[in-house]
Amino acid sequence: MSFMATPIITLTTDFGLRDPYVAEMKAVMLSICPEITIVDVSHEIEKFNIRMAAFVLACAAPYFPKGTIHVAVVDPGVGTRRKPIVIQTQNAYYLGPDNGILVLATRNDKPIRIREITNRRLIMPRISDTFHGRDLFAPMAAHMAKGTRFEETGKRLNVIVEPSYARVVRRKNAWIGEAIHVDDFGNVITNLERADFGQLPERSCLHIRLESRELKVKLCRTYSDVERNEPLATFGSHGFLEISASRGSAAELLRIRSGDKLIFRYS
Amino acid sequence: MSFMATPIITLTTDFGLRDPYVAEMKAVMLSICPEITIVDVSHEIEKFNIRMAAFVLACAAPYFPKGTIHVAVVDPGVGTRRKPIVIQTQNAYYLGPDNGILVLATRNDKPIRIREITNRRLIMPRISDTFHGRDLFAPMAAHMAKGTRFEETGKRLNVIVEPSYARVVRRKNAWIGEAIHVDDFGNVITNLERADFGQLPERSCLHIRLESRELKVKLCRTYSDVERNEPLATFGSHGFLEISASRGSAAELLRIRSGDKLIFRYS
Amino acid sequence: MSFMATPIITLTTDFGLRDPYVAEMKAVMLSICPEITIVDVSHEIEKFNIRMAAFVLACAAPYFPKGTIHVAVVDPGVGTRRKPIVIQTQNAYYLGPDNGILVLATRNDKPIRIREITNRRLIMPRISDTFHGRDLFAPMAAHMAKGTRFEETGKRLNVIVEPSYARVVRRKNAWIGEAIHVDDFGNVITNLERADFGQLPERSCLHIRLESRELKVKLCRTYSDVERNEPLATFGSHGFLEISASRGSAAELLRIRSGDKLIFRYS
Repeated sequence: MSFMATPIITLTTDFGLRDPYVAEMKAVMLSICPEITIVDVSHEIEKFNIRMAAFVLACAAPYFPKGTIHVAVVDPGVGTRRKPIVIQTQNAYYLGPDNGILVLATRNDKPIRIREITNRRLIMPRISDTFHGRDLFAPMAAHMAKGTRFEETGKRLNVIVEPSYARVVRRKNAWIGEAIHVDDFGNVITNLERADFGQLPERSCLHIRLESRELKVKLCRTYSDVERNEPLATFGSHGFLEISASRGSAAELLRIRSGDKLIFRYS
Repeated sequence: MSFMATPIITLTTDFGLRDPYVAEMKAVMLSICPEITIVDVSHEIEKFNIRMAAFVLACAAPYFPKGTIHVAVVDPGVGTRRKPIVIQTQNAYYLGPDNGILVLATRNDKPIRIREITNRRLIMPRISDTFHGRDLFAPMAAHMAKGTRFEETGKRLNVIVEPSYARVVRRKNAWIGEAIHVDDFGNVITNLERADFGQLPERSCLHIRLESRELKVKLCRTYSDVERNEPLATFGSHGFLEISASRGSAAELLRIRSGDKLIFRYS
Repeated sequence: MSFMATPIITLTTDFGLRDPYVAEMKAVMLSICPEITIVDVSHEIEKFNIRMAAFVLACAAPYFPKGTIHVAVVDPGVGTRRKPIVIQTQNAYYLGPDNGILVLATRNDKPIRIREITNRRLIMPRISDTFHGRDLFAPMAAHMAKGTRFEETGKRLNVIVEPSYARVVRRKNAWIGEAIHVDDFGNVITNLERADFGQLPERSCLHIRLESRELKVKLCRTYSDVERNEPLATFGSHGFLEISASRGSAAELLRIRSGDKLIFRYS
């Protein structure tokens, strides 16, 4: 993978826009590599919500040019033994803590190679216990934008943390997944993708088991295929299976929350 | 109109900053034209509030350099037959749905020329039903930044949708307008501009009819010209007539809401 | 101080991200100097909270490259006689109203030189009474990025406004300071810095007098040095003394608010 003329670094964090934290990361990066273009994916991830960050990054990443460097920092374990990692995929680089935040974005862009960030010459001389975004991930990303090769970032890793939302389990005719995000409109985004189902017939009916309840939802192409306030399922613009309600909140109507385990069958 | 060395694209949307949508638009644009400078006008427009977006864009646009490309997407009709359009004015280009969002920004920068965006070679191969910002407006804007001529964007249009807030009607000694925005301080911004009134004497008294009520407001230069909590009218820094209350909320004091019809006389 | 190839201008304001104000400042700057890189420090400073802006800017500024131009506008006195100023420090330039907003950022980067911004050729021809950010500070900053020398900005000043939070007073064995910020987690940031104390022994106990109350807080290195919900003091990643509570809100636990006077002793 060769670098772009003007490398792009993206940022996905739960730091918010009130405090100086995001500007500090940008200042560190621009000090090392003034030519970069920085794009904010989101700094309004819910505090400590790794699953939401993983989802938001996975949505945005595929639209960026080859060679983009993505930095994602939602890091409740900062200061503990969780590893800082960098992942190289076919099209991009991803930096973040090894807590699952990079899993959704990287799983569709294989093969992947992983390194633990250990090269102390390429990060801040003093790493604070509380802010690896500024002291570790930002400088390493900027050095990579400047030309540091993936192999120089640190030592090779073979396995990364795989959270439950990274896995869809198939059991005979059922798929076991979960709700990974509820958006502002009350749409429930699941971790199932079109490819998980193989040949799913148009206009199927999905049967969703949630704890002891059984929900029935029509698989549709557009919201207008069902009556007002009736639930429906679509493959959203990002390829994840979404459960919606026509002009209403599916999350409220069906009482589904982010993190809920969902078992899918179809007929 | 010739293009700047580093073209600027601005964005005005109701997408918010939590979700990946804005980053997806930027990723698409940077993939097509890496040299652009992207400036966010606002992504915190109230959901579906076209009037507010039209106002915010009209405020900011005149300060940008000649040749700037403005993209505005508040689009409750996405997926219906409303047309995607591009407008060329004397100083800038404007892209957005034909729902009135571009009307306030373009009416003072004549002559204008209009095209419907129909050139499918310059937009995404698959247009989602729900996200024309990313799939249609972003790529077209980036292609224009790269040099695509206005004539290549699509087919000529002569008329665009003209919402009520785009028109101030003069009837003898009265002007019929409306409240287009209430800001964080409770100031009521109207769609009347200084030029609408012609020779309006300093220190006039404005008589405003709102439904069956008659309000009297002094035309002033600064807030200190009236007593605390008394209403006053000024031509704000953007040229629109504003109704304010000294150290208070005019919207509350006079019970005016965004969208209200207002009939003005003066003495 | 020589200018960078691509000068950086940072912005710290209380304008929010809903309205067109920030975009107007950026438009003015890009019209004058298209090559600049603009970095938002924060636009979510609480309305009129100069102390918070001073703190946020002081945190972020040290991470930016030499020659960066910082613009800070929280300006309740706009339109009155408060002076618009520019400060040159060893590493950077700072523009803002003379109301204390620049004091924390500049005091550690001496020597400083001060000018009142009076050169009307380098600002907007018409200065609105309400928006010096756009009409005065933005154009002056952009002209400086383009090469205008510090001496051309206006007339020399020797003294600037020094608000209470800029001063830590030493009285025998006590330091008199104040709480300058309470962050989202309830951490109380004070205006005391490590250097104020001289040789403060590790694991000291701080005695803090707040009105008639006496608080005892251990000086620690990490949050895990105390029991859950017990208070502790640390020198945060920005060098200011912070009072925190392990997994709780120190501001609530100790009933400290931004602006409170605090008298410190140690044993």
